[in-house]
Amino acid sequence: MARWEPDAESRLRAAALELFGEIGYEQTTVAGIADRAGLTARTFFRYFTDKREVLFSGSGSLEQLMVAGLAQAPVDASAFDVVAAALIRAGEFLSPERRPISRLRNSVIAANMELRERELIKMATLSTALAQGLRERGIGEPEASLAAEAGIAVFHVAFTRWVGKSEQRSYVEIVNDALARLRALMSN
Amino acid sequence: MARWEPDAESRLRAAALELFGEIGYEQTTVAGIADRAGLTARTFFRYFTDKREVLFSGSGSLEQLMVAGLAQAPVDASAFDVVAAALIRAGEFLSPERRPISRLRNSVIAANMELRERELIKMATLSTALAQGLRERGIGEPEASLAAEAGIAVFHVAFTRWVGKSEQRSYVEIVNDALARLRALMSN
Repeated sequence: MARWEPDAESRLRAAALELFGEIGYEQTTVAGIADRAGLTARTFFRYFTDKREVLFSGSGSLEQLMVAGLAQAPVDASAFDVVAAALIRAGEFLSPERRPISRLRNSVIAANMELRERELIKMATLSTALAQGLRERGIGEPEASLAAEAGIAVFHVAFTRWVGKSEQRSYVEIVNDALARLRALMSN
Repeated sequence: MARWEPDAESRLRAAALELFGEIGYEQTTVAGIADRAGLTARTFFRYFTDKREVLFSGSGSLEQLMVAGLAQAPVDASAFDVVAAALIRAGEFLSPERRPISRLRNSVIAANMELRERELIKMATLSTALAQGLRERGIGEPEASLAAEAGIAVFHVAFTRWVGKSEQRSYVEIVNDALARLRALMSN
């Protein structure tokens, strides 16, 4: 039977990101990640299907939080206010503690075309989930898709700022600022 | 010397889309496309690098039109009005004559994961080009990125409607409607 390893998943994630940064994503192997974490490859595969999944396994949590955020918005909120509530809720995932890991993750993704593609698919999946959640709240088309896609546009800009090197503000401050700026741009 | 073939490029494109629809994208070969068009594979490669490029060779024209649309907007137009001008200018490419081909193309892309990824990359590339054009007009960040990404969100929703089976309105009518609806959603 496998030995219980305290916090094996986060140790593996940290080890993988270290190696991606040091020797590159392509050159990093599962054996190397497990070795760096002081664990076995067998333990790695208990948490992740492959090295790419280390970078994207958080997507599900982010989507669940956003969809939960939609559901909690007041019943009379407008479609875009509902999406704004979902984006703000994502701040529970994009916490100060996660920020160094997110910055490292972002630089790994930026350097690899296949990973950038995967990140775009993740954004499209988030948008589809938000549009579905809006339709379940009784918002029709094309409003549901417009609000969801514009919301993900704001999320993408805010997230990119949040992982930027010199940015000090929290994700929630940045996303609120981006929402206000887009509203101002569109009312002119 | 190669024989001059009138309108070889559009014959090859039509033949490729027919075959993608009939036997599937994966099963279609360059030889099959050339044969259907009554041309040689050698002629095919004078216009396209591979069968995938048949689906995406229009991206450059679309991007050029949008960027030209940005440049022509009045100097005092707001960032989002500039983007709206770019989206409307894309209507010169998304013409009534192109619509049957675009519908066929869209159904081929929807059925293939790799092609859907390529289409997402195309959208991201358009957004980057619009943001760059906005910065060249003196619009700062994050406004340039927000306006560009929200604009591409509207473009994506409008384009998806335009290629929809039962949709009768022109692309320009649809995109103007989508722009007005998003503005209304964000001002509530």
